[in-house]
Amino acid sequence: MTRTIVASASREIAIGFDQPFCVIGERINPTGRKKLAAEMVEGNFDTVIRDALEQVAAGATMLDVNAGVTAVNPNETEPSLLVRTLQIVQDLVDVPLSIDSSVTAAIEAALKVARGRPLVNSVTGEEEKLEAILPLCKKYDVPVVAISNDESGISQDPDVRFAVAKKIVERAADYGIKSHDIVVDPLVMPIGAVGSAGLQVFALVRRLREELKVNTTCGLSNISFGLPHRHGINAGFIPMVIGAGMTSAIMNPCRPQEMEAVRAANVLNGADENCYNWIKTYRDYKPLEGGAVGVPAPAAASSGSGRRGGRAARVGVGGAQE
Amino acid sequence: MTRTIVASASREIAIGFDQPFCVIGERINPTGRKKLAAEMVEGNFDTVIRDALEQVAAGATMLDVNAGVTAVNPNETEPSLLVRTLQIVQDLVDVPLSIDSSVTAAIEAALKVARGRPLVNSVTGEEEKLEAILPLCKKYDVPVVAISNDESGISQDPDVRFAVAKKIVERAADYGIKSHDIVVDPLVMPIGAVGSAGLQVFALVRRLREELKVNTTCGLSNISFGLPHRHGINAGFIPMVIGAGMTSAIMNPCRPQEMEAVRAANVLNGADENCYNWIKTYRDYKPLEGGAVGVPAPAAASSGSGRRGGRAARVGVGGAQE
Repeated sequence: MTRTIVASASREIAIGFDQPFCVIGERINPTGRKKLAAEMVEGNFDTVIRDALEQVAAGATMLDVNAGVTAVNPNETEPSLLVRTLQIVQDLVDVPLSIDSSVTAAIEAALKVARGRPLVNSVTGEEEKLEAILPLCKKYDVPVVAISNDESGISQDPDVRFAVAKKIVERAADYGIKSHDIVVDPLVMPIGAVGSAGLQVFALVRRLREELKVNTTCGLSNISFGLPHRHGINAGFIPMVIGAGMTSAIMNPCRPQEMEAVRAANVLNGADENCYNWIKTYRDYKPLEGGAVGVPAPAAASSGSGRRGGRAARVGVGGAQE
Repeated sequence: MTRTIVASASREIAIGFDQPFCVIGERINPTGRKKLAAEMVEGNFDTVIRDALEQVAAGATMLDVNAGVTAVNPNETEPSLLVRTLQIVQDLVDVPLSIDSSVTAAIEAALKVARGRPLVNSVTGEEEKLEAILPLCKKYDVPVVAISNDESGISQDPDVRFAVAKKIVERAADYGIKSHDIVVDPLVMPIGAVGSAGLQVFALVRRLREELKVNTTCGLSNISFGLPHRHGINAGFIPMVIGAGMTSAIMNPCRPQEMEAVRAANVLNGADENCYNWIKTYRDYKPLEGGAVGVPAPAAASSGSGRRGGRAARVGVGGAQE
């Protein structure tokens, strides 16, 4: 059984077909968040701290940490800023982290100070990336997200995307990295633009699971880009893609509808023994008037996943976010 | 491509792997509804009429019609009551109907007066049932729901349930009934009692689709029996079981969370071209405060599925139910 082990200093998590879906909180990322980028450049980590605590309280299994504040000279600015951000987050919460950067020097700098066994995000099928990132993964013995595009870009043909993923797994093997340490992102297209995007990714995830036997991940909300009521599409996509075999996603855990879909899928997939987490989270659930879906009470939400960060709990940040 | 054709006097619907999920409205059923049973016995069909209109307005593809008001002498009371109920419903709405009875004489009486091509609900693998129901389906050229239990009851072993379904398909073939006119119900167990119920039914549905090439249905809400916040489990189950290949379900279409999951799964399955129905239903969607899931505005809800009954529209019953 494929298992990708990630860990913080005090907590180990397995990503796997028989495990609860791994929710990788996406919010610590200044891309497209000008205010957060400006704060981080000034050395103000208030938003980073709030995002870390809120995501863990909402049920995130892991947190992604990205410090890409600028497209100008990232090689100079990003390594030290990523290190600082990572250290703040790993001092604050005890979930495993994902080190997210397009700058190799930043990834290596972060790997040097990271505790536990972080996930590297990411390598692609591009030759330059493979040669830069895979040796680092081997050296630090860490798993890596493998995005299935290469020099020719993102193929619209799922067979090509599968072939790129296969190439990365094979190249990783050349470096002595096992396939269970590769988490493939098959790339999710917006269903509003590509009508077959859902069927494509379900088929791809099944092949990746059955033929390459790898864990998978995706930028979840891509699927609903451009559509109204995106949370509804996301919440439908989660159970479908989990049913197809996807084992993790980079997503916003502070969205109750999406997290409810994750929890339901865990129950239905046999990954929530005796429905323990479901019952714990929703036992006092009261629907809003008119049959609408309500928000779980803070107490229930904050204890929802059973994976809440110990430090977050001590700091006393409740689950009011959900 | 497997297609089960059902029809009212004026409207034909295909149930199939490439079609929007077929929502069979379950509410016209006095089982467990003492007040409704009493009304129907007295010849008061107000609730039946309201349930018919509301379900069609909420987006039901078909309506199930059951007149099982008593367990005492159903052979005497049920045929005439089912005929009367069916006639009222088919005069009122133009969606195809499902004739639901455990009394063979009631099914035959209803088949005699039904317009279009109704679905018979149901046959099982019991010898007596096979011999009673299959000749009727052949005689009236109508499709039938095949429930995968037999004289020995409901097996906990999905392989046995598959074998029962296969037997029914083979027996139907002996009567000259094609497999595309058999809609198998693989039987959904409550996940709160049987932790593997989800994985079981997903595997069964896939086998039924791939090996027997039949359409499938289920009593959807069974899955969440006994759990808190059942709508959340149901709404997670719908996309997962559709992803596994299920093509219809007997369910309550007046539940907005479940219908939203159906619409999202249609989009993701490539069965909502250009996301037309999704956009039409949710373009003016406003989430409730706190990020909760809101109820679509009446106008949007009532036009949601594009399958709203013409008569219901004329009568002017809006989508306030959703």
